[in-house]
Amino acid sequence: MKAIILAAGLGTRFKSDKPKVLHEMLGKPMIWYVLRYLKASNIVDIGVVASHKKEQIMDYLKDENVSFFEQSNPKGGTADALMAGKSFFEDMTDYVFVVNGDTPLVKEDTIKGMQRFLHMVEEYEHKTIGALVLSSFLPDPTGYGRIVKNPQGDVIKIVEEKEATYDQKQINEVNAGVYMFYVPYLLEAFKHLKPSEKTNELYITDIIEIMANQGITCRSFMASEITEIFGVNDRWELSFAESVIKMRLLESFARAGVSLHSPESIYIEPDVVIEKDAEIFPNTVLKGNTHIKKSSKIMNGSYIENSSIGEDTTILPMSYIKDSIIEDDCTIGPMCHIRDNSHVGKKSHIGNFVELKNAKLKEQVYAKHLSYLGDIEIGEKTNIGAGVVIANFDGKHKHKTHIGKKVFIGSNALIIAPRNIEDKAFIAGGSVITRDIPKKALAVERSELRILENKSKIED
Amino acid sequence: MKAIILAAGLGTRFKSDKPKVLHEMLGKPMIWYVLRYLKASNIVDIGVVASHKKEQIMDYLKDENVSFFEQSNPKGGTADALMAGKSFFEDMTDYVFVVNGDTPLVKEDTIKGMQRFLHMVEEYEHKTIGALVLSSFLPDPTGYGRIVKNPQGDVIKIVEEKEATYDQKQINEVNAGVYMFYVPYLLEAFKHLKPSEKTNELYITDIIEIMANQGITCRSFMASEITEIFGVNDRWELSFAESVIKMRLLESFARAGVSLHSPESIYIEPDVVIEKDAEIFPNTVLKGNTHIKKSSKIMNGSYIENSSIGEDTTILPMSYIKDSIIEDDCTIGPMCHIRDNSHVGKKSHIGNFVELKNAKLKEQVYAKHLSYLGDIEIGEKTNIGAGVVIANFDGKHKHKTHIGKKVFIGSNALIIAPRNIEDKAFIAGGSVITRDIPKKALAVERSELRILENKSKIED
Amino acid sequence: MKAIILAAGLGTRFKSDKPKVLHEMLGKPMIWYVLRYLKASNIVDIGVVASHKKEQIMDYLKDENVSFFEQSNPKGGTADALMAGKSFFEDMTDYVFVVNGDTPLVKEDTIKGMQRFLHMVEEYEHKTIGALVLSSFLPDPTGYGRIVKNPQGDVIKIVEEKEATYDQKQINEVNAGVYMFYVPYLLEAFKHLKPSEKTNELYITDIIEIMANQGITCRSFMASEITEIFGVNDRWELSFAESVIKMRLLESFARAGVSLHSPESIYIEPDVVIEKDAEIFPNTVLKGNTHIKKSSKIMNGSYIENSSIGEDTTILPMSYIKDSIIEDDCTIGPMCHIRDNSHVGKKSHIGNFVELKNAKLKEQVYAKHLSYLGDIEIGEKTNIGAGVVIANFDGKHKHKTHIGKKVFIGSNALIIAPRNIEDKAFIAGGSVITRDIPKKALAVERSELRILENKSKIED
Repeated sequence: MKAIILAAGLGTRFKSDKPKVLHEMLGKPMIWYVLRYLKASNIVDIGVVASHKKEQIMDYLKDENVSFFEQSNPKGGTADALMAGKSFFEDMTDYVFVVNGDTPLVKEDTIKGMQRFLHMVEEYEHKTIGALVLSSFLPDPTGYGRIVKNPQGDVIKIVEEKEATYDQKQINEVNAGVYMFYVPYLLEAFKHLKPSEKTNELYITDIIEIMANQGITCRSFMASEITEIFGVNDRWELSFAESVIKMRLLESFARAGVSLHSPESIYIEPDVVIEKDAEIFPNTVLKGNTHIKKSSKIMNGSYIENSSIGEDTTILPMSYIKDSIIEDDCTIGPMCHIRDNSHVGKKSHIGNFVELKNAKLKEQVYAKHLSYLGDIEIGEKTNIGAGVVIANFDGKHKHKTHIGKKVFIGSNALIIAPRNIEDKAFIAGGSVITRDIPKKALAVERSELRILENKSKIED
Repeated sequence: MKAIILAAGLGTRFKSDKPKVLHEMLGKPMIWYVLRYLKASNIVDIGVVASHKKEQIMDYLKDENVSFFEQSNPKGGTADALMAGKSFFEDMTDYVFVVNGDTPLVKEDTIKGMQRFLHMVEEYEHKTIGALVLSSFLPDPTGYGRIVKNPQGDVIKIVEEKEATYDQKQINEVNAGVYMFYVPYLLEAFKHLKPSEKTNELYITDIIEIMANQGITCRSFMASEITEIFGVNDRWELSFAESVIKMRLLESFARAGVSLHSPESIYIEPDVVIEKDAEIFPNTVLKGNTHIKKSSKIMNGSYIENSSIGEDTTILPMSYIKDSIIEDDCTIGPMCHIRDNSHVGKKSHIGNFVELKNAKLKEQVYAKHLSYLGDIEIGEKTNIGAGVVIANFDGKHKHKTHIGKKVFIGSNALIIAPRNIEDKAFIAGGSVITRDIPKKALAVERSELRILENKSKIED
Repeated sequence: MKAIILAAGLGTRFKSDKPKVLHEMLGKPMIWYVLRYLKASNIVDIGVVASHKKEQIMDYLKDENVSFFEQSNPKGGTADALMAGKSFFEDMTDYVFVVNGDTPLVKEDTIKGMQRFLHMVEEYEHKTIGALVLSSFLPDPTGYGRIVKNPQGDVIKIVEEKEATYDQKQINEVNAGVYMFYVPYLLEAFKHLKPSEKTNELYITDIIEIMANQGITCRSFMASEITEIFGVNDRWELSFAESVIKMRLLESFARAGVSLHSPESIYIEPDVVIEKDAEIFPNTVLKGNTHIKKSSKIMNGSYIENSSIGEDTTILPMSYIKDSIIEDDCTIGPMCHIRDNSHVGKKSHIGNFVELKNAKLKEQVYAKHLSYLGDIEIGEKTNIGAGVVIANFDGKHKHKTHIGKKVFIGSNALIIAPRNIEDKAFIAGGSVITRDIPKKALAVERSELRILENKSKIED
């Protein structure tokens, strides 16, 4: 089965320079979700009909191996858009799946169910269905196109809200705008389509009535969840759809053995992986290619992007980790910042108000307070005091620093890079280090302390 | 049309020393919302009936140009409160709008709809309605006063839950406690009011039955949303009402072209302005007179109060900005603190654990790590190293510092204010600066570095 | 009345090494909530039937004064589990309360209501009920066991979804799995129980039909909230149950006079106490034995664990406080970290990027920026500058520091512990303090500042 995605709409209600289908939900454009459920249903031969700002869409999809078609008149209507892609499917004697690019919530199981349904009707009823229409039953169907059926249960028409009779308005089954069409019948139906008298547009929904009038059986297939039929027409609806996908992702992790607290407050993107027995607390953010390993804890308000968190590691509240790796058994945060390909070895502790930037730490490194460690390698069991700064930038260039094993860097010390501090060196607190320090050396930069009695001038 | 707000209730369920109508939702007292929807409906001549702690209410409203009336007995009932304001409307041959101060969710469009309805009945039915009662249909009306109608659809009575018959309890249309009364009929009805036998209170709801018995037509008008009729009786209901208003604000921004992620997790106050194509991430806080400009991004957990954020500026997660201006194309945060009339020029970067207090930065200033910059001006293209502190307080007074253009302040440097560092000066890392530094000078305060071989005492 | 908690289930859907009933909601194992509502209903004589990983359960409950029973076959079914505890109740001529350990949401008022109901039936109907079944009416009962009644309203059977007839599936009243059984009748019923043909398990639900067949009256009692009957079968359901309990806690505080903003975004644990007129902002976390006193404010994103916050104290956003005491009238944060038995005296200010660790501060201490204060006592009215660090760790041991009253510690100063800084001492900015400083002394450690004209090498 091929699929055709209609992405030619103007999306004016988005009030955006970006085409509607490229607006992002959880860091991915809306159309990415459509492609994902199609591919997950083994529909890999995909055409996209674009028009308005088509270059942006083509550019985004350039690595997705899809075929492009242009609707010359973006106000031609849905059927005009579909006909613009006719060359993509006209040779088939199979079904073509037709979906709007703004319908990101369809589930792959539903598509597989539609496919099975077509097979079963062929097998048991010996009929080829002309159109299988995805539908849902809404308690309040106001605003949606209604599925009109004959007494045998075949769909004979889809009527829009504004054209529905009083009786038709009572119908609760509504159209999702997602179809499987049998191509030979579809091509035949195209010939009979007429523009709407009101809008001059050609509508896909009219195809059902045309087929039914020709004696072709059309059926509806009920979505497993009401949300599946949701179309996204503005940014408010976009945030709703984003929440639906987010909750589906989180539910699947919880069912697989991840503990979640207040899942509705957790932000997660679709490429994130969370292993069993991890525990995720409220208001956390998990973005990009993030991997949360077994039995780790991500605490309240922490933000993790494109990073890996090791087993049994705890990320304390309000930590920010990006593009980095934290190994097993670490304690990180609260309120630290780890970024730019940093790597924190096992059993290390990174504490509050510490920034790691391109910092490679071996095992059991401690840097617990108020430090900036940039462009640096640090050996195992080294302790970095509070207020330590690596001056990696001289105003023109960035330089690298190497600190060995079991080194002690005293508080408020400043290391002027490039620098090499060898194993077991001891840097006295407050020192500015402008030379390399050999193994086991003690380095001190400090003046005499003068104590002037009764000179504090502090009043009683 | 005049309006009278009844704000005399004791509000005992709030368990507060503050009158109920002054409890805040999104930073504004509940009664502010009532005034706002009245004024938005062009009802500007407003009376307020207070009693319990009336001074606090009068004080809050002193600039709002409203008339005050006192209900001498705060337990006199709703009609007694209304009668306390009689002198405000008794000369009118028009309608008076009557609303409780604890009904903050009515929409201006609903009020305008009520006004249109009165005009239409006059025009087409040639009737003057005595009372138009705002109502809603609730699936479960338990606890609410029910709207009893005659077969013609006129309201003939409002019955409270506890006095309703079995049949009346089946009525789903409930009373919002929001009315438009035709004044001459209202004054006449006042004469017939009798205190409740149970509570000795006079009730506004009794006015409907009095009018109906006199052959005066009363009607109900359905609110467009169920939430509009919501009255706030304790702090739990207050937080519900706050959420409703918050979601309405956010929805209006999303529909206007702002991208919101997990809008229910965003806190926003009603004076905030957000421009098109701005993107607001979860758990952010936007308070007071905050202005978020075009295409800016406010990322997760950031807090912005009374501040302006420029175009294409990104506020990274967990930043705190108050009473300040950030210009265009800046990168701010994560985890920085900008406050007290700070001003950050275009293309500047303020990074983690940096505090700006009354700091005026020109364009392209970089201060990316662990700094305190207080009471300072900084010229363009100046770079502030990690750990830099401006010592603006000497124990008694605060002093100002000026740093020029293209200055380099080395890491962990301390500038003792008041100080003037001229253009292109270079302050060596770790220096304490106790004198002004001329243009292009290099300043160093540093002792000799002593390296004592094999003296580190770190064990193997 | 005795109660027996069935906690022998395998809980396979939790995918965990920990028994299901020990999974935590708001920091307490699920079974803690069951014990809590039993004890709150004055049911103190409690038996627990365990099997799968019973040692962990017994260990957790070791101080709870409960009796343990082992179900030898964890796949024996619910009635087999109940029979495993038979020796706990077989001597009673009273009711035994039977509940699953995975049913944490029952309310104590409901249990008291069930007890009253039993008494009333005895008193007015002169009947001893054999089984009183907790039930609820669900709009969609799919998946739940249905309560089948005779025309007199007595329960005659409970049928599981999969065994229900079409008519039985229409029943909306469902079984909560919570029962009060009259012990003599229960023991008799045990004799007639037969294993399910399908699963070979013995079911408690079969007891109802057995009793009804013996002419014993069984009744159902409706839970006051639908959520009460909720059973927790996997971690997704666990997070739902956690949210229900959280919202109940928050509602009770709001009704008692606490102001909450976006309560659904607040995380609170059951041992937390919040006093009247406190105000809690969105995305805050209140854990463990935390006490929030009168009229204090906990602002957005702050995290407080096992700590006490004084009256009229404000915790600014994104602060992290653990195991500490903050006195009245303090201003704390934003973005500070207070931990390890710290104690902050009245009217003190602790500002951004400040860490207090085991720090005892008297009244009016100011430490507003970028400091690490560890293992320290500080006297009243002392001011700590920005960037100050107490070097409490020498690489081997931690040392203590004492700072007196009205001391001024200049910015970026480093105090090497152990140290004693006496009252009214003044430490110059940037000094490293390696000796004790007497009262009123001025201490300076600083080199000469060299200013090299035109040596900055910064290009134009």
